[in-house]
Amino acid sequence: MWKPDRQVKKPIYEQIADHLEQRISYGEFPPGSLLPSERKLAEQLGVNRSTVILAFAELRAMGIIESRTGSGTRVSTSKWEATPKHTPNWSRYAEGGSFLPNLPFMRKIRESLAQQPSLIDMASGELAADLAPIDEITALMGEHRYTSYLGYDNPQGYTPLREALVSHLERQRGIRTTESSILITSGSQQSLYLITQCLLSPGDAVAIEDPSYCYSLPLFQSAGLRLFRLPVDQYGARSEDIRSLYKKHRIKMVFLNPNFQNPTGSVPTAERRNQLLAAASELGLPIVEDDPFSLTAYENSPPPPLKSMDPLGSILYIGSFSKIAASGLRIGWMVAPNAIVERLADARQQMDFGLSVIPQQVAAQFLNSAYFDPHLNRLRMQLQFKRDLLIEALRKELPGLITFSVPQGGLHLWCKLVPEVHDGKLLDEAIRKGIVFVPGSVYGSESGYVRFTFARARAEEIAPGVAKFAEALRSLLNTAQ
Amino acid sequence: MWKPDRQVKKPIYEQIADHLEQRISYGEFPPGSLLPSERKLAEQLGVNRSTVILAFAELRAMGIIESRTGSGTRVSTSKWEATPKHTPNWSRYAEGGSFLPNLPFMRKIRESLAQQPSLIDMASGELAADLAPIDEITALMGEHRYTSYLGYDNPQGYTPLREALVSHLERQRGIRTTESSILITSGSQQSLYLITQCLLSPGDAVAIEDPSYCYSLPLFQSAGLRLFRLPVDQYGARSEDIRSLYKKHRIKMVFLNPNFQNPTGSVPTAERRNQLLAAASELGLPIVEDDPFSLTAYENSPPPPLKSMDPLGSILYIGSFSKIAASGLRIGWMVAPNAIVERLADARQQMDFGLSVIPQQVAAQFLNSAYFDPHLNRLRMQLQFKRDLLIEALRKELPGLITFSVPQGGLHLWCKLVPEVHDGKLLDEAIRKGIVFVPGSVYGSESGYVRFTFARARAEEIAPGVAKFAEALRSLLNTAQ
Repeated sequence: MWKPDRQVKKPIYEQIADHLEQRISYGEFPPGSLLPSERKLAEQLGVNRSTVILAFAELRAMGIIESRTGSGTRVSTSKWEATPKHTPNWSRYAEGGSFLPNLPFMRKIRESLAQQPSLIDMASGELAADLAPIDEITALMGEHRYTSYLGYDNPQGYTPLREALVSHLERQRGIRTTESSILITSGSQQSLYLITQCLLSPGDAVAIEDPSYCYSLPLFQSAGLRLFRLPVDQYGARSEDIRSLYKKHRIKMVFLNPNFQNPTGSVPTAERRNQLLAAASELGLPIVEDDPFSLTAYENSPPPPLKSMDPLGSILYIGSFSKIAASGLRIGWMVAPNAIVERLADARQQMDFGLSVIPQQVAAQFLNSAYFDPHLNRLRMQLQFKRDLLIEALRKELPGLITFSVPQGGLHLWCKLVPEVHDGKLLDEAIRKGIVFVPGSVYGSESGYVRFTFARARAEEIAPGVAKFAEALRSLLNTAQ
Repeated sequence: MWKPDRQVKKPIYEQIADHLEQRISYGEFPPGSLLPSERKLAEQLGVNRSTVILAFAELRAMGIIESRTGSGTRVSTSKWEATPKHTPNWSRYAEGGSFLPNLPFMRKIRESLAQQPSLIDMASGELAADLAPIDEITALMGEHRYTSYLGYDNPQGYTPLREALVSHLERQRGIRTTESSILITSGSQQSLYLITQCLLSPGDAVAIEDPSYCYSLPLFQSAGLRLFRLPVDQYGARSEDIRSLYKKHRIKMVFLNPNFQNPTGSVPTAERRNQLLAAASELGLPIVEDDPFSLTAYENSPPPPLKSMDPLGSILYIGSFSKIAASGLRIGWMVAPNAIVERLADARQQMDFGLSVIPQQVAAQFLNSAYFDPHLNRLRMQLQFKRDLLIEALRKELPGLITFSVPQGGLHLWCKLVPEVHDGKLLDEAIRKGIVFVPGSVYGSESGYVRFTFARARAEEIAPGVAKFAEALRSLLNTAQ
């Protein structure tokens, strides 16, 4: 990313004006297009807004840009040519297609993190660098040479990885399958995208837990699905609710994250599991089971997936390395009836022609290596340790102001705020104080909830992060009084 | 992939029956679902069809499967339960969504290659293992340790790779841009998918070269676009045709592969390029320029892309490593106006949450390394050598039966067959003789054309491949007489 050079003599604002003029001449900002706002540019370039104002004034004087009150700053159309020429109406193209933009809260969190590296990150649902098996992956990549053919891969994914998953799934998750019924994806997100785009049609009704991370993903709405809610209690979703939604709305599919549910942390009892499976098979209703967190179970053995009790093939099972190894690997998988795996593999070929072989090789080696089990054990201990740090800090900083149940696995803590506060205002204030979290409303719940991720921040950041959050909350409460 | 074990005592057909029973009990073939045909299973398992017939008979005797004439073999529904249970109607789900399946010819080619490893591959549009920089990549992966953080990446892609591309594009392609206007994709396929899904709406009219590899990609039809044809002559598509399609059908976008067009190998003259750009800017019409082959120019310097003459930002430029390094890396890029890059990056996050960092690191190191230019030089020489082998063999084996123009770059030779033959019959016969090519009709042309790829097969396979093709063609001609 270009930044002005403070060592050279040329004034910063002139450097910025030159840089923008260059990018305009490259076609990055075509005639008529909107430039980023003064505030956004100032943040990106790490300068005062007044410096950007000066740069814009320079470009305006040269006739390169035009500002109109209320409609921002645009590249001028007159400057460019004697003969009338047109550029595509890019803003109209950008509004085309059926893809909804990401949620504003999620964009704000992402942008704040990009612009303010000192922010304590209790929002991103991923592991900290020191929890990921970076050393192990580095070692494996050094041990194994990548001399194999780097051509287009099998549409279902790299065969040795699917074979490694067959034994991993049997050993660690009690799921018996063969490599023909496994599809390697780039993670749960791609699995869900394929399912919603290729197996369902616009207008179809589906059931989703409430609250659920699914509401943070616009892909359900982008696919034109009608979403109905399955309230989550201490043990997750209930089969009675599935039956009644089926009766009322003829739901076509159910999306569950049974074990250490995101965001609530709930885990079903054995009885609840049987009831869910019975409902699915009696109604002929497929359940998509997303299972990214089970292997993080801190103390007890990981809860079994529904898929381990599914001889009838009603479950589309989704797993991933993102929450137990490294999200940057971008390796996930789906276990599903043969016909579905083949259909989705064919559709995925059309979208991206499959995944890179390299991370698939790394993932296969990691699964087969002696590093895997010790890594998981270390991860579990560390996550439990960080969970405890978070809980201790919350109890100390916000006694009486926050309630939660203590999760036995996963990366998140789901909290209810006792006082009433505005979701968006609390997030803004927290970012000002130096911490990000995810407002509960992102997960479809009513406001007044907060999701803290304790996996991403460093252990020593957790107590200070909670202190900053407490400051933000108190300052809002004081203003309100 | 499971195969029967010929060393053990148990008869092969019983092993197959046991294996299928197991997979049925895992839910891979739910009650009521269709099993693969006897012929397909026999091919997959490398046994005679009669062995599969015996295995099916065994399973039928046990009540596990049922066959009905004309509707194939299904897993029986009665066997499984006393109480009435249902499994999802998976075949109906598999027919849902807007995704069209891949073309039958493409599926046949893919399946033949998977099942018959001795086939000479003159169909797959990719490099042979000995043309890919495997040693260089292995060396780079050994030199650089992957100690960096493996978290979710910047939505536009790994920043050091975008920076490396900025200088690569300027030096090798004459394109000036900054990393903010580059989106890393998993290849041209994903770039095209993002453009068609996110910038266009169902019903929109677009112009595509005729013939074009685009017709082999169902993604245009899956997006509900109306396709109009731009005939390709020796110098590619013509601006007059773009203007007239715009007038008649209000086309919203033009898809071109100007340099060493796939499949024809055409390259525009300087005048033709200027006319295309003038048409785009006068009509305010965006051109998607796919440029995967330019750097393979065998003898002359690579032809310039339209994007190098595009200060108005009318061109969405697509590039990739697939045809100049290794398709298995799955690394491509798009250069586009800022607003478009941001929109597509946001949409891509929803589809797959971005690409793995690992191949992006490899790609960045390769671009920045001293290996890159020598690799390209070697690749050019080798491709020219293989092109010459192919041409020599065609002239020797099929004098008077085939015509073509000699391409100066790229991976393909586009041939017209002088005698009239049926596309599908020729492909079937060629596969029987031991060679695959792509029938011209896949690229939207009338029948009677053939695309040979000379990059994928080993040099010593090319002459025998052409001999087999000639046998297939002659045997069809003899039958017809």
